[in-house]
Amino acid sequence: MEVTNRYIAIKNHIDGAPKESDFELRTSALALSVDPGSGDMVVKNLYVSIDPYQVNRMKNYSSSHKSIRFSVAITPGEVIDAPGLGKVVASGNPKFEKGDLVVGIVSWAEYTLVKEESIINKLDPMGFPLSYHIGVLGFSGLTAYGGFFQVGKPKKGEKVFVSAGSGSVGHLVGQYAKLFGCYVVGCAGSKQKVTLLKEKLGFDDAFNYKEETDLKSTLKRYFPDGIDIYFDNVGAEMLEAAVANMNNFGRVALSGVISEYTDAKKRAAPDMLDVVYKRITIRGFLAADCMNVYTDFLSTTLDHLRTGKLQVLEDISLSLENIPSSFIGLFRGDNIGKKIVKIAEE
Amino acid sequence: MEVTNRYIAIKNHIDGAPKESDFELRTSALALSVDPGSGDMVVKNLYVSIDPYQVNRMKNYSSSHKSIRFSVAITPGEVIDAPGLGKVVASGNPKFEKGDLVVGIVSWAEYTLVKEESIINKLDPMGFPLSYHIGVLGFSGLTAYGGFFQVGKPKKGEKVFVSAGSGSVGHLVGQYAKLFGCYVVGCAGSKQKVTLLKEKLGFDDAFNYKEETDLKSTLKRYFPDGIDIYFDNVGAEMLEAAVANMNNFGRVALSGVISEYTDAKKRAAPDMLDVVYKRITIRGFLAADCMNVYTDFLSTTLDHLRTGKLQVLEDISLSLENIPSSFIGLFRGDNIGKKIVKIAEE
Repeated sequence: MEVTNRYIAIKNHIDGAPKESDFELRTSALALSVDPGSGDMVVKNLYVSIDPYQVNRMKNYSSSHKSIRFSVAITPGEVIDAPGLGKVVASGNPKFEKGDLVVGIVSWAEYTLVKEESIINKLDPMGFPLSYHIGVLGFSGLTAYGGFFQVGKPKKGEKVFVSAGSGSVGHLVGQYAKLFGCYVVGCAGSKQKVTLLKEKLGFDDAFNYKEETDLKSTLKRYFPDGIDIYFDNVGAEMLEAAVANMNNFGRVALSGVISEYTDAKKRAAPDMLDVVYKRITIRGFLAADCMNVYTDFLSTTLDHLRTGKLQVLEDISLSLENIPSSFIGLFRGDNIGKKIVKIAEE
Repeated sequence: MEVTNRYIAIKNHIDGAPKESDFELRTSALALSVDPGSGDMVVKNLYVSIDPYQVNRMKNYSSSHKSIRFSVAITPGEVIDAPGLGKVVASGNPKFEKGDLVVGIVSWAEYTLVKEESIINKLDPMGFPLSYHIGVLGFSGLTAYGGFFQVGKPKKGEKVFVSAGSGSVGHLVGQYAKLFGCYVVGCAGSKQKVTLLKEKLGFDDAFNYKEETDLKSTLKRYFPDGIDIYFDNVGAEMLEAAVANMNNFGRVALSGVISEYTDAKKRAAPDMLDVVYKRITIRGFLAADCMNVYTDFLSTTLDHLRTGKLQVLEDISLSLENIPSSFIGLFRGDNIGKKIVKIAEE
């Protein structure tokens, strides 16, 4: 049996903020069968993850292209691989059977032909919503957990600042930090998000960066005793302001710099005298570097979820066609929590 | 007995490049005796260290002022404490006797009244020139060794870039790196210095940054396979260019940013996408943070000196009056190696 597989592609390389006209819905014929023993399989995608890092892959040139396998360049017109989950509809791989739920790298498409060497695993929902497995229990959670604990190296009572505090990663970082015993302030881009951070997620404090004119003073106000750990998701001025307010031996876990992704001229120029004299560490990392804490991450996170200590923010849109607008919205801060597109019912 | 103690002071706070008119020679009466049991002593200074970091102490405001004890603000008109060595002329401290050679924090003066709580130790020259004990065997050596090994975390065969390669710290970093088994390229500001790095110090290669127009391309030329460790003494454009040329998991040991010390507007704006995707670590440090490797540093360095493997560059001027010009010269790159002023004969 063959189907017309619909997928989202870029029409051209993107070097600024992405817009609807950069994307198109394309189709290709796909056989819903694979050779036995080929190792390949066909997955019907149910949920796909919508992440800011994908914009770097869409550029003509980006550091990301030479980094890990999942951040290589995307070619216009071709299928875009992305984290997600689905159901096996045909398997030539002895490890998987038709009907299995799987999670890993699929694509912004209705179906994904998953090659043997792909990163994909059987999924046991463990009683949680399927979407959790590409968010809080997937890369977003691992990035938050690994970045905070491995790169941030927290001590109880330390002061933690999280930018994009209501984002897919930020809202988890703040909660891990609180549960660990740190003092946490987050920033976000709307009053509603700020309220959410304080009232639902239990951040000690939060502010709307769009209402602030001098971020250095703002952070001084929220951290009169200085910042020990800054979990950075945005870069640029916020990174500069955080470094200016850091304590001796402060650590910046550089998870992403979304404000710099869509504007090549936007750069953080932190005062390096601060970095020297306060002996600050600024360290970039990717979720892929955190696999050594994966077991810890999973058991801790499952535990927090089961005891209701960890709140999960998800922002789920429906249907493949809405991937471009969902993706574009990330750079306007439209999403609250993890942005996901549900492509099909189980 | 009382003497007229001559010392160098700043006349005013300095916020740009220091100039002769910012300094003055002052005098104060000093008793060459101390109360027995007071813990204090009077030291006749023989050699004092001339270091770029002092300019930050001379500013109206600097991050350095809130950092470690030796980097607090300097008050116009007052004695300037500085690393150096001298001979005890009067002691009220049972640990020291008149005639002892001592090394530690003295001052830009003929005599220093050393209080009990000061950091000063008896000096055993171990057959080396006295000046070595405030350079290669002092803070400069410890900064080079600690920064390279602790912050740089080198592996044999890695590619190392050192800026200010002929400076007090840089010329030692490059040699430690070579002796450890790394590939080393240095930069410096004159043809003579570049020749010195390659021919006397054994750097694999070196270049004159003043002859280069695009540092990013320059570093690409010298490091076709990328940089693993950048030992930064200068900051600004060089730091940006190094980050652009770093390999995955590269490390920047940020020892100083001399080009930013005298120009508050000069800032490094490294591409944070590089920092994230290449998982770069940028870490500031001070010699004071390296005390845990002091024993290693000392034994390794003594060994290299005794076997003639480590070359020492010193640039010694004579007399107290020449401290301001020696200091000012640091920011023009006048010095080759460790800048020292010899104040008196032993």
